[in-house]
Amino acid sequence: MNIEGLILDIDGVISRGRKPIERAIEGYRIIKELGIKTVFVSNNSTRSRRIMLERFKHFGVDVGEDELIIATHATAVHIAKENGSTKIYTTGEDGLKEELLNLDHEIVDYRNADYLVVGSNRGINFEIFTKALRLALDREVRYVAVNPDRVFPAEDGPIPGTGLIIGALYWMTGREPDVIVGKPSKIIVDQAIERLNVDRERIAIVGDQIDVDIMAGKNAGIKSILVMSGVTNQENYQEKVRQVGVAPDFVFEDLYELAVALSSGK
Amino acid sequence: MNIEGLILDIDGVISRGRKPIERAIEGYRIIKELGIKTVFVSNNSTRSRRIMLERFKHFGVDVGEDELIIATHATAVHIAKENGSTKIYTTGEDGLKEELLNLDHEIVDYRNADYLVVGSNRGINFEIFTKALRLALDREVRYVAVNPDRVFPAEDGPIPGTGLIIGALYWMTGREPDVIVGKPSKIIVDQAIERLNVDRERIAIVGDQIDVDIMAGKNAGIKSILVMSGVTNQENYQEKVRQVGVAPDFVFEDLYELAVALSSGK
Repeated sequence: MNIEGLILDIDGVISRGRKPIERAIEGYRIIKELGIKTVFVSNNSTRSRRIMLERFKHFGVDVGEDELIIATHATAVHIAKENGSTKIYTTGEDGLKEELLNLDHEIVDYRNADYLVVGSNRGINFEIFTKALRLALDREVRYVAVNPDRVFPAEDGPIPGTGLIIGALYWMTGREPDVIVGKPSKIIVDQAIERLNVDRERIAIVGDQIDVDIMAGKNAGIKSILVMSGVTNQENYQEKVRQVGVAPDFVFEDLYELAVALSSGK
Repeated sequence: MNIEGLILDIDGVISRGRKPIERAIEGYRIIKELGIKTVFVSNNSTRSRRIMLERFKHFGVDVGEDELIIATHATAVHIAKENGSTKIYTTGEDGLKEELLNLDHEIVDYRNADYLVVGSNRGINFEIFTKALRLALDREVRYVAVNPDRVFPAEDGPIPGTGLIIGALYWMTGREPDVIVGKPSKIIVDQAIERLNVDRERIAIVGDQIDVDIMAGKNAGIKSILVMSGVTNQENYQEKVRQVGVAPDFVFEDLYELAVALSSGK
């Protein structure tokens, strides 16, 4: 496969919710021993890196801050690249605000905002929707979404993703985000590629979702590897490939099997 | 015009927000003196008839309960016609719940609901969205929206209408309501026609919005009259007719001018 860098999805790859996948953890250790560079990429729109790194520690995996790109942080980085320090109104939670403030952006009243940043919020209310609506109606305000996720599979059933807010704004105003940062957008993948500092040809993205991770690989023009340890399995694989219209370059049972293949291939 | 019954919009016709339009109030009195039957029809998805009748009293207009059809009440009536007394989960406010309970429906936990009824809610939150999402994902649950209004022009700027919830659910699930009750749906207009008990050919709908009131008249197959006392005016009339693709049968400055024309025509 000739791989020197891997962009790894988290949920369905190294863990399921808060539970680590033990074989995947072992696979990750083998990959690191092979000297392959890795960066975890998550579409999470509510948490800061700090919180995610604590979770990795709990999994028994040692991940540095430079080995994790979370969509909240990637959004702050992208806006800084576009516009420098920016006046932002966000629908999002404290984790997103923390990442925006870390990059010297300013969280302002909606009347003074140059950017509308939409991230999921379990405390969403009518007032937040009203402010976001008024900003979406103003074509001079740039509209950035942290990720495009529609529904999130929580333990007791599906819950709304960031798509709750994106969909409401689209229906009310006809407007979709000017920029989406999270997968399958190439924006977050390009940030991960930059971080790895390896030739694009020698990088692959690893994930469990064809419409998110594999599509992100195609959009960024890098190799893609599907693992069957998350939402995709033998039964729904062909159907999902047909629906999305893209197929992974390689398929493995889980991260452990990928690690074994990388070991023997070297 | 040969009119014996009028279906009257409220906002932009008899009042603007909480303020009565004095000339329109005078016009309404003339219309009643002519012996023309009237029924007010409102798309409001949060208030009960009780609250609206109090507002008319405040305008100095005597309107009976049988002369007002509000989308909350019309929704309760429509569901009773479809399914009898029904187990309902609603996203809506107390005004909608009051009308549903009045028609012997039951407000239940979402897990036991046969119908999802979507109405606007200024107390909307993540939990309500989660429950509505799970019901919208269940094709055996019938999904009724009180009205299709996307944005409402409040005094300090636009605020979300019921479309906030309809749009969020559409984006997350791909599903639109099975039934919409409020204008421009013919469902609420047909209830008004039934109430008037006059030949359809001698009924006209009067309103200020081409996409809502005039379209409702076309959908129900009755005459339509536009008044220029609300959102439509000489400047935007042609553009709106072009956008919506329907034109009113008659246009008047306000309800007073319509009343004068009806007087002279008799």
